[in-house]
Amino acid sequence: MLQATMSSRRESETLMLVLNVSEPPSLWHELSGSIRSSILPTRNRPSSLTQWIVSVIYGLFPIVHWARNYNLKSFKSDLIAGLTLASLGIPQSIGYANLAKLDPQYGLYTSFVPPLIYAVMGSSRDIAIGPVAVVSLLLSSMTQKIVDPLADPTTYRNLVLTSTFFAGIFQVSFGFFRLGFVVDFLSHATIVGFMGGAAIVIGLQQLKGLLGISHFTNNTDIVSVIRAVWVALHHNGVRKRKLFWLAATTPLLSVILSTLLVYLTRADKHGVKIIQQVKEGLNPSSVKQIQLTGSHVGESAKIGLICAIIALTEAIAVGRSFAAVKGYQLDGNKEMVAMGFMNIAGSLSSCYVATGSFSRTAVNVSAGCVTAVSNIIMAITVLISLEVLMKLLYYTPIAILASIILSALPGLINFKEAYIIWKVDKMDFLACFGAFAGVLFGSVEIGLLTAVIISFARIIIRALRPNIEMLGRIEGTNIYCNMKQYPFAITTPNLLIIRIDSPFLCFINANFIRERIIAWVTEGHDAIKEKTGIEVTSVIIDMSNVLNIDTSGISAIEELHKKLVSACVQVAVVNPGWEVIHKMKLSRLVDKIGARIFLTVSEAVEALASSAMKQENSDIV
Amino acid sequence: MLQATMSSRRESETLMLVLNVSEPPSLWHELSGSIRSSILPTRNRPSSLTQWIVSVIYGLFPIVHWARNYNLKSFKSDLIAGLTLASLGIPQSIGYANLAKLDPQYGLYTSFVPPLIYAVMGSSRDIAIGPVAVVSLLLSSMTQKIVDPLADPTTYRNLVLTSTFFAGIFQVSFGFFRLGFVVDFLSHATIVGFMGGAAIVIGLQQLKGLLGISHFTNNTDIVSVIRAVWVALHHNGVRKRKLFWLAATTPLLSVILSTLLVYLTRADKHGVKIIQQVKEGLNPSSVKQIQLTGSHVGESAKIGLICAIIALTEAIAVGRSFAAVKGYQLDGNKEMVAMGFMNIAGSLSSCYVATGSFSRTAVNVSAGCVTAVSNIIMAITVLISLEVLMKLLYYTPIAILASIILSALPGLINFKEAYIIWKVDKMDFLACFGAFAGVLFGSVEIGLLTAVIISFARIIIRALRPNIEMLGRIEGTNIYCNMKQYPFAITTPNLLIIRIDSPFLCFINANFIRERIIAWVTEGHDAIKEKTGIEVTSVIIDMSNVLNIDTSGISAIEELHKKLVSACVQVAVVNPGWEVIHKMKLSRLVDKIGARIFLTVSEAVEALASSAMKQENSDIV
Repeated sequence: MLQATMSSRRESETLMLVLNVSEPPSLWHELSGSIRSSILPTRNRPSSLTQWIVSVIYGLFPIVHWARNYNLKSFKSDLIAGLTLASLGIPQSIGYANLAKLDPQYGLYTSFVPPLIYAVMGSSRDIAIGPVAVVSLLLSSMTQKIVDPLADPTTYRNLVLTSTFFAGIFQVSFGFFRLGFVVDFLSHATIVGFMGGAAIVIGLQQLKGLLGISHFTNNTDIVSVIRAVWVALHHNGVRKRKLFWLAATTPLLSVILSTLLVYLTRADKHGVKIIQQVKEGLNPSSVKQIQLTGSHVGESAKIGLICAIIALTEAIAVGRSFAAVKGYQLDGNKEMVAMGFMNIAGSLSSCYVATGSFSRTAVNVSAGCVTAVSNIIMAITVLISLEVLMKLLYYTPIAILASIILSALPGLINFKEAYIIWKVDKMDFLACFGAFAGVLFGSVEIGLLTAVIISFARIIIRALRPNIEMLGRIEGTNIYCNMKQYPFAITTPNLLIIRIDSPFLCFINANFIRERIIAWVTEGHDAIKEKTGIEVTSVIIDMSNVLNIDTSGISAIEELHKKLVSACVQVAVVNPGWEVIHKMKLSRLVDKIGARIFLTVSEAVEALASSAMKQENSDIV
Repeated sequence: MLQATMSSRRESETLMLVLNVSEPPSLWHELSGSIRSSILPTRNRPSSLTQWIVSVIYGLFPIVHWARNYNLKSFKSDLIAGLTLASLGIPQSIGYANLAKLDPQYGLYTSFVPPLIYAVMGSSRDIAIGPVAVVSLLLSSMTQKIVDPLADPTTYRNLVLTSTFFAGIFQVSFGFFRLGFVVDFLSHATIVGFMGGAAIVIGLQQLKGLLGISHFTNNTDIVSVIRAVWVALHHNGVRKRKLFWLAATTPLLSVILSTLLVYLTRADKHGVKIIQQVKEGLNPSSVKQIQLTGSHVGESAKIGLICAIIALTEAIAVGRSFAAVKGYQLDGNKEMVAMGFMNIAGSLSSCYVATGSFSRTAVNVSAGCVTAVSNIIMAITVLISLEVLMKLLYYTPIAILASIILSALPGLINFKEAYIIWKVDKMDFLACFGAFAGVLFGSVEIGLLTAVIISFARIIIRALRPNIEMLGRIEGTNIYCNMKQYPFAITTPNLLIIRIDSPFLCFINANFIRERIIAWVTEGHDAIKEKTGIEVTSVIIDMSNVLNIDTSGISAIEELHKKLVSACVQVAVVNPGWEVIHKMKLSRLVDKIGARIFLTVSEAVEALASSAMKQENSDIV
């Protein structure tokens, strides 16, 4: 019945429907729209300046929102969470500073200023801010290629602070210019592989600290690390193996116990390396240490960019997953601005790159945090330790820092996820493995680059060689489906229905598509098993998946049409996308194809069948 | 009626239809399939070794095919075409050799060996082989950056021959490994822009020859060329302006006339530069001049690669358009192998990169060529001139060569095509303009790189920010269409039908798509103008355009589903692609979505409506 209605209206109404659509939004219109929505992200535009200022303040400082409803009960929860966080955060910060090849107090500095800034600017209620293992490794492995941290610690530190400054600038820019998608360049699979590889590299490096080895490699690739461990083990023996068990207990406890132990036994006289002097007092200003001129600016900027992206990736991944659990939404662009400001402020007050930590955020949530106040509590606790407790760290063995870092690593290696990736998507696993192996056997940059190249190559290859599918009808319906996917679909021997499965028919695939379709029509195709020498007399090209086209695509369709028509094959085009039909009109391709443009495959099938019948009738007459 | 049938079968059959499809071909299967089809391109595999050898010979030497049916009538046509071709080809070859900064005879060498090789190996019947303007410019502009052709002509020539050898090797490899798509990397728009820019650069450079200017820039960018012309004009005056008119007459005639004129008036004594000595005789061997070791190998290979691609692009474009006119098919990969062998052979016999020429092919076709024999005739004519007529070129003024080159240039500048590109596709025009301006104001490489980057950036941007469309029903049908394209389509206020218009739901767009859909569901959307506070209770996600997915895409859909369900919104998924449904099964996403997977939007609409009705009924009870 439906088909009868359609058929009677056909050749006039539906064609008009397809052809008489309004123009699609122009390129300039779309561009200006997206710029406008970036500058004025809210749907309801502010009517006055005051309103606008208020909305900007609300946008930049989410604390204004929730601070009004903050109550004692929430504070109690946040206090407990903050103190728990500090008990994990303080030893971790000292350990990560060691990993970043900075003095212990720099880790604590980084756990003081950035969390405070984030608390007033960030929109996540759960994330715990501070130094993290992977970023610390990144910073040290890239910066020590420029300056040796042992030979020239001051220049090294200045470079780290400058890179931190750049990282902050990049993060703010990403957020401000809505470039949040750069974080998406690192796919889930890449992150899984990268984290796993980085964790192993960090773990191997920590064997140095754990075994109290003095002569060790600074390289991050696995071959040199393993060789150095091997050499060290054979030279020094395994005399501090007993310290391994401490890695299992809680970090703070182990710091206290080990410090006491060293103090009581004076083990430092017998070869156990201790932290010794830690500078007391609050973060000093480091404005003068940011070096925006000189020979290393370009390299600092590059390190800053990589750290900015990795730090954001970790923070946004961690923030998003906990926001999903608690059921609120994170604005990625605002988060980037908050992270950026906290790192700029950090770089000016002797902090290195801070971000949201996987392990500490989990502790924060488990301890019952309600708002970012837990970060403030932690920062205050860090402040107190910086002012008062630094002297007590004198006897803390360096080995304990290594074991604290090691205890955080298993959380970074996610075998289960890697297995799921392998099961679901082999190419994704390749990217995952590329990141893993690249970090392990090459360097951090090689790992990331490998994974990004694999991921993007895949997109390009898909654009280059899109699927072209033969369609058949599912019995009892007018649904036309891929013949390979639904092998029982029905075909008509002399009618080919071909769907172009590319959203963008353009220079890199136009010739391929044209040649493939011509080959199918002239040589026949495997999918039509029942084809027994019957010539193809009609071809329906289903373009419903083709959403855009360029001039190369237009000429490919034009040549295809010309070729098929000259071979006495009837051609019908079905449902080209909005942009496509518009460009087909502009290039006068529509005039050449004539009335044979349809909205659905079933309409086209019917029209071709009836025109074939007319043809036969006229042949008989 | 159809809908009634569908509805009764629903929740059992159609779901089973979607879920119980066979596994899509695995990655390895597809890869091995494509490798197999590359090695054995024919569908009918040869049954014996002899047959196989025969088929390979037929494939490599199409001449075997057509030579058997070759007759006197065809030969007459080809003879006339070949002689006409030679009359244009000989002066052009000398001119282009000048453009390539080689001695005149090298142009003639290049018009002798390559056409002969192509005649037996190529599959085009019309293409005229020899040196062309753009490739000559490419070679000289890139090679003179390494060696100055005036200071050290021998090294320069060796480099050119080595680059030619590499170009041939690359072309054979492209054809053999079916890498023909590299030619597709330069879109139609890029070629139009690039040719236009190159023509202007060549034209400006030729002013040097035309005006008989001795001190001139070798740079190819427009600023230095124009400055040099300006300086030269003011110093030398415009004393040879009268030679301009000759550019309009036919090249051979002008060569003869001008040579005679110079000879009679002894104008060479009065400042007119003449060719003087041209080495007589056939192509000498240049095997020993190919330098595959030494410091410049890498650069030669790079130049060879760029020349190989540009030469192939021109040849295949020219071959395809004339093949389309005459109604035969060109196999791009075989053409590449033929072009490659002809350039390898050429590089060993003192030829530089040859390819199919736009202007000469047109002359060849107009003169009535039937087969590649016209190329052989031309080669023989060139052979005769090399052996006999070289002495006569002594008095040929260099200015005449410049005017011959200039007369071929207008054909390379295609304003009409550029206008069509502008009209149809603004982004394509940007690539076109990028190539044009890059060649003109930068260099050949900058122009090509700019255009390729613009073209690919577009593909990446489309993958990054795919369209997500709201669908509505067209009245009186069960066709669901983009609401923006068909604004009169009907919607139901509390039901959103959203189509994801991305063929690959992956890491770079998964978050964007998820957030966009959640925003639409929670905030409502412009497209539903009649929406007046009515909450969205059901969402249909049409995934028929999603053909593949990665693990990031899977988790985005999973999170989206979780989020919507937790907001008490019913979710249905429609027609995910083959790979997608397979991966959804592997990752157990199908179990989470449950029975709400449909084959068409109309089914999903119906099922959601009936379940909503049941819900209401049960609420009443």
